[in-house]
Amino acid sequence: MPELRKDPIVDRWVIIAEDRGKRPGDFPSPTRKLQVGFCPFCPGNESKTPPEVLALRASGAPRNGSGWSLRVVPNKYPALKIEGEMNRTGLGMFDRMNGIGAHEVIIEGPQHELALEELPEKNIQDCLWAYQQRIIDLKGDSRFRHIVIFKNHGEAAGATLEHTHSQLIALPITPKRVSDEIIGARRHYELKERCIFCDIIDQERSDGQRVVMENSDFIALCPYASRFPFETWILPRYHQSHFEKDSVNQMAAMAPILKDVLLKIRIALNHPPYNFILHNSPVNGHHDAYYHWHIEITPKVTKMAGFEEGTGFYINPTSPEEAAEVLRSIPIQP
Amino acid sequence: MPELRKDPIVDRWVIIAEDRGKRPGDFPSPTRKLQVGFCPFCPGNESKTPPEVLALRASGAPRNGSGWSLRVVPNKYPALKIEGEMNRTGLGMFDRMNGIGAHEVIIEGPQHELALEELPEKNIQDCLWAYQQRIIDLKGDSRFRHIVIFKNHGEAAGATLEHTHSQLIALPITPKRVSDEIIGARRHYELKERCIFCDIIDQERSDGQRVVMENSDFIALCPYASRFPFETWILPRYHQSHFEKDSVNQMAAMAPILKDVLLKIRIALNHPPYNFILHNSPVNGHHDAYYHWHIEITPKVTKMAGFEEGTGFYINPTSPEEAAEVLRSIPIQP
Repeated sequence: MPELRKDPIVDRWVIIAEDRGKRPGDFPSPTRKLQVGFCPFCPGNESKTPPEVLALRASGAPRNGSGWSLRVVPNKYPALKIEGEMNRTGLGMFDRMNGIGAHEVIIEGPQHELALEELPEKNIQDCLWAYQQRIIDLKGDSRFRHIVIFKNHGEAAGATLEHTHSQLIALPITPKRVSDEIIGARRHYELKERCIFCDIIDQERSDGQRVVMENSDFIALCPYASRFPFETWILPRYHQSHFEKDSVNQMAAMAPILKDVLLKIRIALNHPPYNFILHNSPVNGHHDAYYHWHIEITPKVTKMAGFEEGTGFYINPTSPEEAAEVLRSIPIQP
Repeated sequence: MPELRKDPIVDRWVIIAEDRGKRPGDFPSPTRKLQVGFCPFCPGNESKTPPEVLALRASGAPRNGSGWSLRVVPNKYPALKIEGEMNRTGLGMFDRMNGIGAHEVIIEGPQHELALEELPEKNIQDCLWAYQQRIIDLKGDSRFRHIVIFKNHGEAAGATLEHTHSQLIALPITPKRVSDEIIGARRHYELKERCIFCDIIDQERSDGQRVVMENSDFIALCPYASRFPFETWILPRYHQSHFEKDSVNQMAAMAPILKDVLLKIRIALNHPPYNFILHNSPVNGHHDAYYHWHIEITPKVTKMAGFEEGTGFYINPTSPEEAAEVLRSIPIQP
């Protein structure tokens, strides 16, 4: 059973997932390549994944067979286990609990060689819909405090399989960086009775320098204090704390902007590895007035050195104004 | 002039260092190798670095010539500039200031091919002494709030030059992760009137599972909530908030434990890239009662994926108990 442990100094939780079996000598070389050859996410290989929890396929077609356009399956090597008791315990001054949680994989499309941004808009919209459905389902489990959805694209961004996919992790705790965001947003709200994200959107739209693109419902911008070159956030222009509460129409407006931003980054940086993370309101809690969901996209073009990791203080060699200008100038063929 | 910018949501400062000149296309390939060939840190090439601010060489030998055993020089491509006004300004809701600071390189020894842990104990002690001297000198500059000393060993850990060296950055702000530590340590002190690090050392010594080694003055342990496989901290067993206040005798006790821990990690993980960071008390502030300096060593054997980066929540496949057991069992030849 994996274990959750809390650092007593900074209240940061970590998963100790020894089941994943890394003894010295088991670690892959830092220059390890993506797994190639057999792909468990390709059509025809459905039996190589755990049974699907959600899928889109022609009506009447059998579950766990081929013919799907999207599948969600439990991770075969989960960092957390869905069954069991939380068993919160203290060990002297330390805190631990069992590594209870959900770890799922969203296989975004059937074609092995296509990246998310190369899929038709409709498939990207389906993918956003699948994220929503899985969040709604897992929110019903009272053990969970937070659900993270993220994507690792390319091996330098942490992907171990090439076939396009994103991941979901449901956690019995709220991660530190999420709490930090909530605390900051609440402080702003207490001072001003306004959402800090809405304020940022207003200021960025009137300034314009850091805006990459926008449509009726969404805006993409390079944030003022970008940690990484070409870091780009996509936010709803309307106030909404919970991603899963957005309508089908809103997701239909989100899909093209996500596609276009990822394509612009792909062209600007010559197919870089990247991560994105859905920053969403924690499951329990009353953050509706001041939290505002968004997606943070971070291309991996610089190495994180010890300085950044150890201090939480980043050196970014590209200003967000320059990154936004480059991204704006890249035309996207419809 | 580089710029310091603050994220308005989570109060995290970043350096936007555009002078470093990274436009799209300038980014090195993620598989880029260390710079090889000419080495500006080797003896005979002293004129290729900015003039030294500290060095150890035979008495009477000329400055900036060869014959040294250790040199400290300003970074030729600094992330921050030492000259200028802070010029704190607001831009609407955003905060910025000029990128004032010091960025220095500690060249730990003259031999190009030796890693820090391969140097004689005396040279490692000299290196710790040099860290202390530079901190004491830079503390005199009232613009600085915090001084970070860190080492990137190996390209995957962010090193760009092979020749063994560490770096110092003096900052006009306190980095977020440092503030988080201070806040956590202060909270513990307010509750118990004890230092949380001293409490951790007591508990770890009586438990023993996570202790790697100790001597009269120092202890090396794998922390209970380790973020990374084989993460190891070295702490003074006595309470001390400020690294630079430690005596020559204390540094003489620190040098062999730093050397041995790095050698054990080197053997256990087959010459891994690693980072270490000196966590020291901020320059101004009254944290003497509850802060406790230490060094955090993090071998880089797993890739940080989007999940970790975006949530501050880590998945570690090796328990600290197992890591400590492996490290304890590795004999070090005297």
